[in-house]
Amino acid sequence: MAVQNSLSTKPIVNDKSITQVFTFGHPPNQFILTSGERLGPIDVAYETYGQLNGSGDNAILICHALTGSAHAAGGYSETFKSEGWWDSLIGPGKPFDTNRYFIVCSNILGGCYGTTGPASINPAIGQPYGMSFPVVTVRDMVRVQRQLLRYLGVKRLVTVAGGSMGGMQAIEWAVTYPDFMDGVICLAAAGRLYPQAIAFNEVGRRAIMLDPKWNCGNYYPGQGPVDGLALARMIGTITYKSDESMNKRFGRKLCSDDEECLFKFDEKFQVEDYLHYHGGALVKRFDANSYLYLTKAMDLHDISLGYNSYEEALSSIKASMLVVGISSDILFPTYQQKEIVDIMQKHNLEAHYYEIDSPHGHDGFLIEFDKIKPFVDVFLRNL
Amino acid sequence: MAVQNSLSTKPIVNDKSITQVFTFGHPPNQFILTSGERLGPIDVAYETYGQLNGSGDNAILICHALTGSAHAAGGYSETFKSEGWWDSLIGPGKPFDTNRYFIVCSNILGGCYGTTGPASINPAIGQPYGMSFPVVTVRDMVRVQRQLLRYLGVKRLVTVAGGSMGGMQAIEWAVTYPDFMDGVICLAAAGRLYPQAIAFNEVGRRAIMLDPKWNCGNYYPGQGPVDGLALARMIGTITYKSDESMNKRFGRKLCSDDEECLFKFDEKFQVEDYLHYHGGALVKRFDANSYLYLTKAMDLHDISLGYNSYEEALSSIKASMLVVGISSDILFPTYQQKEIVDIMQKHNLEAHYYEIDSPHGHDGFLIEFDKIKPFVDVFLRNL
Repeated sequence: MAVQNSLSTKPIVNDKSITQVFTFGHPPNQFILTSGERLGPIDVAYETYGQLNGSGDNAILICHALTGSAHAAGGYSETFKSEGWWDSLIGPGKPFDTNRYFIVCSNILGGCYGTTGPASINPAIGQPYGMSFPVVTVRDMVRVQRQLLRYLGVKRLVTVAGGSMGGMQAIEWAVTYPDFMDGVICLAAAGRLYPQAIAFNEVGRRAIMLDPKWNCGNYYPGQGPVDGLALARMIGTITYKSDESMNKRFGRKLCSDDEECLFKFDEKFQVEDYLHYHGGALVKRFDANSYLYLTKAMDLHDISLGYNSYEEALSSIKASMLVVGISSDILFPTYQQKEIVDIMQKHNLEAHYYEIDSPHGHDGFLIEFDKIKPFVDVFLRNL
Repeated sequence: MAVQNSLSTKPIVNDKSITQVFTFGHPPNQFILTSGERLGPIDVAYETYGQLNGSGDNAILICHALTGSAHAAGGYSETFKSEGWWDSLIGPGKPFDTNRYFIVCSNILGGCYGTTGPASINPAIGQPYGMSFPVVTVRDMVRVQRQLLRYLGVKRLVTVAGGSMGGMQAIEWAVTYPDFMDGVICLAAAGRLYPQAIAFNEVGRRAIMLDPKWNCGNYYPGQGPVDGLALARMIGTITYKSDESMNKRFGRKLCSDDEECLFKFDEKFQVEDYLHYHGGALVKRFDANSYLYLTKAMDLHDISLGYNSYEEALSSIKASMLVVGISSDILFPTYQQKEIVDIMQKHNLEAHYYEIDSPHGHDGFLIEFDKIKPFVDVFLRNL
């Protein structure tokens, strides 16, 4: 397959946060998706931290969640006005130690942080793809990451790690490229999406698609369905938290101290204000069509695809698996992580279950760093 | 307070399902809401089953849930083309035995099944209230029911019973009119709404209010925001079910057997189809503004209002309480029912906790009749 780097830059291997772009799949050698459709050229935005060794086998791939980006670590940069989303775990002396490992994180296929997605220009027509973008899967995302690693000279991964949709990619890696890594760390995720999570995704998509400004996906270069996307995020935010965390943080507290406001229709409880804040924050940084395609990819995620059963897919894994659940997670309840480990252990494969005892729900993988660090350390040391 | 029956009918006391209307609160004697606002006249749609005895003390009040109606029992009628929503529990020889008891059920204030709500004509202007309807509370609903019972000649209730928002009314009855009943049966509810449930209500309201056809509530006599209301119902439906029930019923089954459809954006999993079905079904029978006002009333529900604490409010109860939780309920998790019973027992009050072991989630109170019947029977016998 023809591999070209559209920016003609060599990968800058350092600890600074510089997002680069690798491009491949130029016609007629387009990338063939799981669906059989062809897509290309494909840009892949990525960041790297640390140095790749001469044998190309000290690399770790970090996979991001639904609305994440390649900016997993490093401070503020021109591209990202915020710290990396796993900055607490990646860096010199941290569990994903940049003094030892070459860390790679790339924006997923279908995303909107530099990798080709529905907001990208379809070169065949010179217009954004919009809803003409093909349906992509988590497996496609992983196969695109494989292209990037080949380009970067990575011969073998020490581990793949990610939480939520990043954990879905991690386990997909374990099944699709069983000989390419020693370990896989899958946090707050599963090898397939269960119906309640599909249901939550569908109401989020519906919120976007009912917004008249969505306009069947044709809203570029405008802001698009900001109200619909905000509502989708509000729904998502409920599932990222827990009943317990909401009780502790908000209880029945109102935004206003004025008792007379209590019976006004627009008066809000603090928990409502919190949802609106998070809805409003996402629309400033995320593309609604990407939200549609990435949640659809979550729904379609099932490592069994091409196997006779979930068990058969899991039994094909050769890497050592660390599967982590969060006690209060309602989006990926812990039985889903335990199930993976149970099946793998039944097949005498190396799989470890670790549970983070936390009230923070699904978001725990972005919060409970003090609890995550020790077991990641131990797991990497034992690989 | 002036009490007038707008239809000038006497209550028909029988086992047939005939919805009648009682009207009160004509100006200048309007009903004064918890908020201090005045509302009137107020129509109250109600049904009764069985005979009131001479001393007026064999009555049972049944309270309905969010989108329910006064049609709790009885078969098809001119008004309702369906069986009553608790038909399995109400009738001759059933737990709420119409041979023994005089059963009353009325549509709640703010509803859209005959009782005054936002779709009703505001006589002052000759137009529907829409969003000029005042914010009402569960306490207001209960106080309206009290007016109805006075009109019907009920001197004392054997029990008040309801599930979900009906259970919220039941416990509000216990606090607001502690001397008026022997028992209270509160299923899958609580004495106040917790923040996660408020959050789910808010995203549902947001779905309605973002629909352009909502038009700030001014859509009568049109259909109004059918897409927004359907989405609100889809969100609600997730919370009425459970992860377990969705896994059992739907798993990852697709609507189409055609494998080629798998990667089409519009292809649906069966769980999605189920949500769409329930969303579409509600819009045929429910008013979107009522949905807004009733969910707001749920949010505001807190028996502590006027007391120094939740505990103080609960300690004022004199009735024997049967508080029922459903093991898989995510909207009103069982700790909320246990909390009521724990507090009451601490104050040496008669409170019993019963848990329905069921995978059906919150909807269990409309499904698990075989499990509900025995403990309702025992509770009523012991009153």
